[in-house]
Amino acid sequence: MLSLDFSTLTEISDEHGLSQDELSSQSEKLEEYLENIHDRDQGFYDILDNEKVVEEIQRFADAARGKYENVVVLGIGGSALGAICLEQSLTHLYGENRDSPDLHVVDNIDPSMIDELEDVIDLESTMFITVTKSGSTPETLSLYYYFRNKLEEQDLAVREHMVFVTDPVDGMLRDIANEEGITTFSIPPNVGGRFSVLTPVGLLPAAIVGIDIKEIILGAKEMRERFLSKDFDQNLSFQLASVQYLLNQKDKTINVMMPYSQKLIRLSDWYRQLLAESIGKAENEDGEEVHVGITPVNALGATDQHSQAQLYNEGPNDKLIMFIEVGDLGEKKDIPVLNPDRETTEFLKGSSFNDLIKVEKEATQQALVERDRPTMTINIDKVDENHIGQLFMLFEGATAFLGEFFNINAFNQPGVELAKNLTKEKLS
Amino acid sequence: MLSLDFSTLTEISDEHGLSQDELSSQSEKLEEYLENIHDRDQGFYDILDNEKVVEEIQRFADAARGKYENVVVLGIGGSALGAICLEQSLTHLYGENRDSPDLHVVDNIDPSMIDELEDVIDLESTMFITVTKSGSTPETLSLYYYFRNKLEEQDLAVREHMVFVTDPVDGMLRDIANEEGITTFSIPPNVGGRFSVLTPVGLLPAAIVGIDIKEIILGAKEMRERFLSKDFDQNLSFQLASVQYLLNQKDKTINVMMPYSQKLIRLSDWYRQLLAESIGKAENEDGEEVHVGITPVNALGATDQHSQAQLYNEGPNDKLIMFIEVGDLGEKKDIPVLNPDRETTEFLKGSSFNDLIKVEKEATQQALVERDRPTMTINIDKVDENHIGQLFMLFEGATAFLGEFFNINAFNQPGVELAKNLTKEKLS
Repeated sequence: MLSLDFSTLTEISDEHGLSQDELSSQSEKLEEYLENIHDRDQGFYDILDNEKVVEEIQRFADAARGKYENVVVLGIGGSALGAICLEQSLTHLYGENRDSPDLHVVDNIDPSMIDELEDVIDLESTMFITVTKSGSTPETLSLYYYFRNKLEEQDLAVREHMVFVTDPVDGMLRDIANEEGITTFSIPPNVGGRFSVLTPVGLLPAAIVGIDIKEIILGAKEMRERFLSKDFDQNLSFQLASVQYLLNQKDKTINVMMPYSQKLIRLSDWYRQLLAESIGKAENEDGEEVHVGITPVNALGATDQHSQAQLYNEGPNDKLIMFIEVGDLGEKKDIPVLNPDRETTEFLKGSSFNDLIKVEKEATQQALVERDRPTMTINIDKVDENHIGQLFMLFEGATAFLGEFFNINAFNQPGVELAKNLTKEKLS
Repeated sequence: MLSLDFSTLTEISDEHGLSQDELSSQSEKLEEYLENIHDRDQGFYDILDNEKVVEEIQRFADAARGKYENVVVLGIGGSALGAICLEQSLTHLYGENRDSPDLHVVDNIDPSMIDELEDVIDLESTMFITVTKSGSTPETLSLYYYFRNKLEEQDLAVREHMVFVTDPVDGMLRDIANEEGITTFSIPPNVGGRFSVLTPVGLLPAAIVGIDIKEIILGAKEMRERFLSKDFDQNLSFQLASVQYLLNQKDKTINVMMPYSQKLIRLSDWYRQLLAESIGKAENEDGEEVHVGITPVNALGATDQHSQAQLYNEGPNDKLIMFIEVGDLGEKKDIPVLNPDRETTEFLKGSSFNDLIKVEKEATQQALVERDRPTMTINIDKVDENHIGQLFMLFEGATAFLGEFFNINAFNQPGVELAKNLTKEKLS
């Protein structure tokens, strides 16, 4: 179960919150926006029906798991953030008891990072997954060249140690794959990098570290049904987008994602790209200069109560805080108050870490409400494959709707071309 | 060497940037603000003279390093972020070749995190460092109780496996230390949690993982000399604060810290607390309701070019981007372009990762400048102890000055008390 709780938005002033009427008044836009999204011919929700691809990934992963000690993803941005999030959310936090290779995601070109990675991997037992949608990302291709060269220097067969994830037809990487017969998984052309976690981009690394990718897809399909629903009460993605949009009109220019779960810490990084790149746009669909955008901020409960909460409570009222609360954070862990007579910790007697983190979330939210700050909660039962799948689809759907609310194209990224071209010029 | 480059602020419009005159006009405030800071009697810069403490930490760490396989820091917020930053910046990125214990910082109360940590540590070879300035942080004391109870269940001597970092006189943890003779390092009472990285809070874990803490102090002292200087051209902290303040007056409500160095990724997390808690305040020193604050955002180059740059380029012009550039990122690593005839990667021929990351930073900044977005660069020679010490003191000093610019108290955090009290009420 995944549910949205907007009740704390109605508890604060209309200036900073939302009345129930304001929120439901958006429902009339749902059908039109859904049609617009269909017209954009994006594949991020259709891909869930590619059962054959999931089977292929699983087969490849099963074979790889026994064969390699290390799997290294070479990719950046949308080619990395999904895999990082999946590993953090769905495998052991300290890498224990995993009957699978270690996963390293190299999503930077810092030479010291590459150098130190080489200290811990043995090329003979390493597989590299090169991920680039376009097949032309310079950072990723540089890393690909570097490690391919290392393999060749050691006379290791490239086909045994490299697999590609890229466009089905176009791009340099696809050309090489065709010429050399390197195993290659496809990213459908109509799925953008930041919407690609449920393609081989995210699923292949996930399957290799033992994550149940079929269950992720099942969860995503559950949420897709809601995303495609014309019923406002059913459509959680639309509801979320409505809230983000309406509050942005009330100068909430920042959206903080604050899960109360260590395992969800990297979900916020994945979401940062989705929201920032999709909605941060100079021009709207009518060619007008609008410079819209919501700045995503990652935070973590309870940790960032001791880092960011002061600002959220007392600073400018420019944020929507999106809490994520997890019903079941695992077996109950009691707090054994060993000094029951000390006043400082008396209130902890008889409680557990499960209680404490739950109560701290409630208290943090209540304090924000009392200061007239907008907050909401996404509730999930637990951090498992099914719910992660639901979360991905919830946010992808909401982001697609947000694009319609702002009347912008949520699926392009014209603003990064200039720096790419300047890089080429400066290097040449 | 550490230097600040504001030249890109003068290259854009006055509406979004700063003229040289605007910047230097602030210099007249320097002497007054410096006096104000002295009057606040804060210890964050005096602590650098506690040479005896550094010796004691080093002795303790040297003994511990051979004795324990794991060192676990129990602490949250300012009791954790400094240690996390120091380990990420100054030890091997993948934990290799370290003649020292593994460091785990438990800065959350998620029961699944505690559970999974227990899978990888053997209590017999583990030391716990409990860090709480007040000695009363409920999250930290809960963790302390939990692991102490585990030690006692295994008949392990608490004094052999626990060390405290807390107030020299007050608080529950100090009381226990006194009663039981547990080794305890002090945080000077006039040093706030977010300013405490250069006390045992940060230095003890750092020394244990083999970081040269004396060199950190030396770097910090170099920068302190500048911070205490009445000469505007010398005082980098004051210059930085001037820029942050002036641009905040021009609606740059967000400061993005974007180091082009994988090792500096956690410096931004440390800085997030410093800026958010220090400057996010409801009231100014005259008791007026002001709700000031700058929202810190962490980003990483080159990685987040593929996640956040679209928003920074085309979204609302509400951010100051603070790049950090590192002169020497390690030995030159060439990019072996194996397909020299392919157009896609032709421009990479003859270059190295060292060149590429440098050029990408320049290109990213130039693109922002062309879009009239304010940026600046902090240049350091390399990521080593000395420069990390300089960076800590640069930002601590700048934050102290920022408090004066905003006429607020940068050293308290009244906005978190309500949630703390609500937590107690709800649990009782």
